[in-house]
Amino acid sequence: MSNAIGDRLALGQRILDLADDLARWSEHGEALTCTFFSEAHRAVARQLQAWFTAAGLESGTDAVGNVSGRRPGAVADARSVIIGSHYDTVRNAGKYDGRLGILCGLAVLESLSRVRLPFAVELIGFSEEEGVRFGSPYIGSGAVTGRLDEAILDARDQGGLRLGDAIAAAGHDSGRLPSIARRRQDVLAYLEVHIEQGPVLLDAGTPVGVVTAIAGSVRYALAIAGVAGHAGTVPMDSRHDALLAAAEIALLVERRVGAEPGLVGTVGCFAVPDGAINVIPKRCELTLDIRSQDDGAVARALADVLAEAEAIALRRGVKLTTRELLRAKAVPCAARLQQLFADSIETAGLPVKRLTSGAGHDAVMFDGFTDIGMLFVRCGNGGVSHDPLETVTAEDAGLAAQLLRDTLLRIAG
Amino acid sequence: MSNAIGDRLALGQRILDLADDLARWSEHGEALTCTFFSEAHRAVARQLQAWFTAAGLESGTDAVGNVSGRRPGAVADARSVIIGSHYDTVRNAGKYDGRLGILCGLAVLESLSRVRLPFAVELIGFSEEEGVRFGSPYIGSGAVTGRLDEAILDARDQGGLRLGDAIAAAGHDSGRLPSIARRRQDVLAYLEVHIEQGPVLLDAGTPVGVVTAIAGSVRYALAIAGVAGHAGTVPMDSRHDALLAAAEIALLVERRVGAEPGLVGTVGCFAVPDGAINVIPKRCELTLDIRSQDDGAVARALADVLAEAEAIALRRGVKLTTRELLRAKAVPCAARLQQLFADSIETAGLPVKRLTSGAGHDAVMFDGFTDIGMLFVRCGNGGVSHDPLETVTAEDAGLAAQLLRDTLLRIAG
Repeated sequence: MSNAIGDRLALGQRILDLADDLARWSEHGEALTCTFFSEAHRAVARQLQAWFTAAGLESGTDAVGNVSGRRPGAVADARSVIIGSHYDTVRNAGKYDGRLGILCGLAVLESLSRVRLPFAVELIGFSEEEGVRFGSPYIGSGAVTGRLDEAILDARDQGGLRLGDAIAAAGHDSGRLPSIARRRQDVLAYLEVHIEQGPVLLDAGTPVGVVTAIAGSVRYALAIAGVAGHAGTVPMDSRHDALLAAAEIALLVERRVGAEPGLVGTVGCFAVPDGAINVIPKRCELTLDIRSQDDGAVARALADVLAEAEAIALRRGVKLTTRELLRAKAVPCAARLQQLFADSIETAGLPVKRLTSGAGHDAVMFDGFTDIGMLFVRCGNGGVSHDPLETVTAEDAGLAAQLLRDTLLRIAG
Repeated sequence: MSNAIGDRLALGQRILDLADDLARWSEHGEALTCTFFSEAHRAVARQLQAWFTAAGLESGTDAVGNVSGRRPGAVADARSVIIGSHYDTVRNAGKYDGRLGILCGLAVLESLSRVRLPFAVELIGFSEEEGVRFGSPYIGSGAVTGRLDEAILDARDQGGLRLGDAIAAAGHDSGRLPSIARRRQDVLAYLEVHIEQGPVLLDAGTPVGVVTAIAGSVRYALAIAGVAGHAGTVPMDSRHDALLAAAEIALLVERRVGAEPGLVGTVGCFAVPDGAINVIPKRCELTLDIRSQDDGAVARALADVLAEAEAIALRRGVKLTTRELLRAKAVPCAARLQQLFADSIETAGLPVKRLTSGAGHDAVMFDGFTDIGMLFVRCGNGGVSHDPLETVTAEDAGLAAQLLRDTLLRIAG
């Protein structure tokens, strides 16, 4: 075994062991759930801060629960590279979504403890990215980049508890939110390692990929109003079936986005409210989600889908109503950082796979704040995430840490 | 106004007035609901029996709540023609579903009080056809034709009350069920007038139609198991989306049954359980209902749909499971009685429209028991039924009564 491979497996095994350690804390017994400011969440924050301190970092936990560990630069007032990802989870989560990125950063900083870098490095475990408890994602990274609207303090969880009160109950002062924000001019770059949460790298047989952008997206709610009728007595050519119009629209979404590389489109919710086996559906409700790293492609696909859906409704004599729920622009990764990651991958003797992130990440909050670089790591089990079946191998995790370390050194160079 | 037209309007207006009278009794205030052995239902039975008695019929109410009125034939032991339909309703019903047939029969017998007929006529208001309260239809007509399985006495309503106990609470003896059955050899024919509950006569501009058969049907529950995934991260060509397979199947049903006259097919229930806007559907559940007066056509359409659905599932890499819920054979109306109804319609100067009944009716229970003749009456409002918007005009109701009377006289002749 070469030194590089031995180092890789050791790094990777340490990362997976740390992830196992963090997964001990969960809101319930069966699977991992660790939402914002739960008991489990605060225990994980304490553990992270202890590890950061043990690694020689200047560590602390801020008012929204972000755990940070700073290693100063070679000169006073050096700008910093931020390495981050999140430690909160969805319900019944896997162990690596978010946490892999924090732990890769920790393993890298441990292994660089004797190496002088011209810049500071700040490792941040963001407290909230998933939006599970208060319905609002990116609370941790939003606070760090100064993008957290203070109105969010009035958001309430399912139990009716205010976010501001949850912060106070965790022993923090929500009045200190503005002071969490880093100054743009002090930051050199933001780097995030994250599991891919999809099957692209697995299918390509490649352990890592350079993220080109985080996809932009639109979300719509659609409703079809047709005419109910008896399943036995209304001839087929007299029907105005809401379901059949909706079925056509779902297939149209697939056809339209499938025809253009880089687009994905999903009808995730679909229901005939109060449907009965012997009644022609009167109403059908469905959702639409379209994403691409090309905002223009999203807009064109959406326009085509809505226009053709309207034509379907017209042809079937049903009424279509549409409502926009969300429109988010794509966030590009910096070409410079993409290239440094790619150089590191090539140096490791691996093929460079570039891919878009279809899911959002903390990196989104750094758009326009500093340059973003993201490295994706292959998931096993078909690429499943947000599920206990989520896996990463020690070798891939160790490789990701090596590449992150190499890229940091390239930034230094 | 000719005498025939004057007679028609008078008959029709009387029928609609009686229907209005019966609709005064409902289980709740807003709309008409009159389910088996409710207070409203028993009040309607008492009213019907009072009217039957006033019309000179030998009347009574049996142990399952059927109200009958008998007019003897010219000779002792003459066989009888049964005229019937039901007086129970669905929830939020219209006033004419079932009741129109009973009231047409009553109006006819009133107007024939001085006419000697060689056969007896028995008018029956069946107590239960809709299956609302105990989940089992045709309780009234099933008892009359000796087809009621006594196991049904153990069926329970939503409140947990046994059917047998409901019968006892209504003052009847469920031990007398077998004695309700008429003897096959005593019955000459069964005639039923019913609203069409569909748009065919309305669209054809014809007030009445001769029913050729009550459609046979199959019902299936289908479930598709696909693979969940993140809406942003799984490329279109890597998906196994349960919803899209189900959407194709729904459209396939429409295409297959639409290609063959006389078939109807409906996907009435359709759902993605626990669907989320950003998750590729893992499971989709739907129902299938196919009907025709040609049992072979139903079987062939079902076989084609199931085979093509399996091919869709295979192509999309999802798993289809199917479960048969019901299979009912078509019930033909007697050619002889169809012809007598047609002769009466022609004599009235109207075009003869023949059509299949896509819905079930009490007549179904008389299949193999005696010859069945059915006459459909046009509904307004697009043919809507099982809804307060259900309508019939006085002229159409009066015409139906005239045609029923004329057909009775033709049977006598």
